[in-house]
Amino acid sequence: MRFRFLIAYDGAPFRGWQSQKGGEGIQDIIESALLSITGKPCRLHASGRTDAGVHALGQCAHADIHTRLQTADLQRALNANLPPQIRILSVRRVPDSFHARFSAIGKIYRYRIWNTPVLPPLEYGRAWHIPRPLDLVAMRSAASLLEGRHDFASFSANRGKPTEDTVRTLHRIGIRRQGGLITLTFEAEGFLYKMARMLTGALCRVGLGKESEKDIAAHLDHPRVGAAVHVAPAEGLTLIRVRYPASGRAA
Amino acid sequence: MRFRFLIAYDGAPFRGWQSQKGGEGIQDIIESALLSITGKPCRLHASGRTDAGVHALGQCAHADIHTRLQTADLQRALNANLPPQIRILSVRRVPDSFHARFSAIGKIYRYRIWNTPVLPPLEYGRAWHIPRPLDLVAMRSAASLLEGRHDFASFSANRGKPTEDTVRTLHRIGIRRQGGLITLTFEAEGFLYKMARMLTGALCRVGLGKESEKDIAAHLDHPRVGAAVHVAPAEGLTLIRVRYPASGRAA
Repeated sequence: MRFRFLIAYDGAPFRGWQSQKGGEGIQDIIESALLSITGKPCRLHASGRTDAGVHALGQCAHADIHTRLQTADLQRALNANLPPQIRILSVRRVPDSFHARFSAIGKIYRYRIWNTPVLPPLEYGRAWHIPRPLDLVAMRSAASLLEGRHDFASFSANRGKPTEDTVRTLHRIGIRRQGGLITLTFEAEGFLYKMARMLTGALCRVGLGKESEKDIAAHLDHPRVGAAVHVAPAEGLTLIRVRYPASGRAA
Repeated sequence: MRFRFLIAYDGAPFRGWQSQKGGEGIQDIIESALLSITGKPCRLHASGRTDAGVHALGQCAHADIHTRLQTADLQRALNANLPPQIRILSVRRVPDSFHARFSAIGKIYRYRIWNTPVLPPLEYGRAWHIPRPLDLVAMRSAASLLEGRHDFASFSANRGKPTEDTVRTLHRIGIRRQGGLITLTFEAEGFLYKMARMLTGALCRVGLGKESEKDIAAHLDHPRVGAAVHVAPAEGLTLIRVRYPASGRAA
């Protein structure tokens, strides 16, 4: 039986989603909890990895599990076996054709920036602190160049896959200020490795006057893996939601 | 020269405001930072202690310091010498007649409750998780009994001061729901030891139907130290602001 899990986590205490030798990956921790509930090892397949420090409000994963537990009981049992920094928000039965990664048709990431001289203590580890004022008009203008279907190679880090197709459709970049907090919301059919953080890094350099729209345009016109070298820190990033076709929706 | 410091902190990593033998009190850490900047030991006087785990957005403290630094430079130097979970939001020169504790004319505390079946991971350590639905109408009605000038002894923990005057004016209790988050805002001329957490504990029992308005009224009519025995956990509480007369205002 295939189950789909909607998962939230604080990225700070863990070494990212992916299984680690020391067992400190979020995947390892949830697989151990499943093992102690069902008595059988199983493998979780997520919509994608998140790096160490990156948070999630709506990560999605599936696993094939043999259990007589109802989904609500499985959820409760999992949460009782997991640290409070990892929570299972929902459990659903899904058809065997559902795959958390391959069925996904889109993702939303949000990046949080704190743009005041002093970083509030409760934002430490949860936002990127940029003390100098950011020019949001310039950032929004540069962001509009990035929206659409482009080769985003320049905004991706090499993960040893030189043949990977680096063309993606970036549906929307929303930039909002609420007091000292600036949020960048990225909605795309998919993201390359470190893409959300490299887009954030580039847009913030535009906001600080260190780069211009032309630099952004040049990165799109001459795609080269890793060309936009500024990677915003992991702790500001949150995976908000994974989109699936209506029959296997995440929320 | 007397300086007034506006201070914010995440209560989680520290053992409360008050000086500790191991030097892990927030007061100790700021005094050490001041020592390394000015070269001379000094003593910080806060508006009041906060317990281990309690957060602050606007704690106030004063100290007498001999320095040639401008206030803005003193602030920067302090923040450079403090852990990121403690931040100095402002530094001001104040007259020697100003005393962070004795000049205070009021305080605002806020208590955060997460009232959904699952506590979001990023709220862990920052809110009290109450999975069962709270009846806010009942809580607001009970809160209105508590507003005003009363003997709050029942809502205070004994700290070995049996002769302390336990009459206080509680100006306002604001109860708000925003999605899963419920906030209780307490505005008073002053708070007894653990008063905000004991008021929260009592109001939440009313919200869960375990106590009634009559129980609250009885605690006010028959004040007895510690009678309202339910103390809400420290991590949900934040000292928002300390009020001073206009000449020495906190904000």
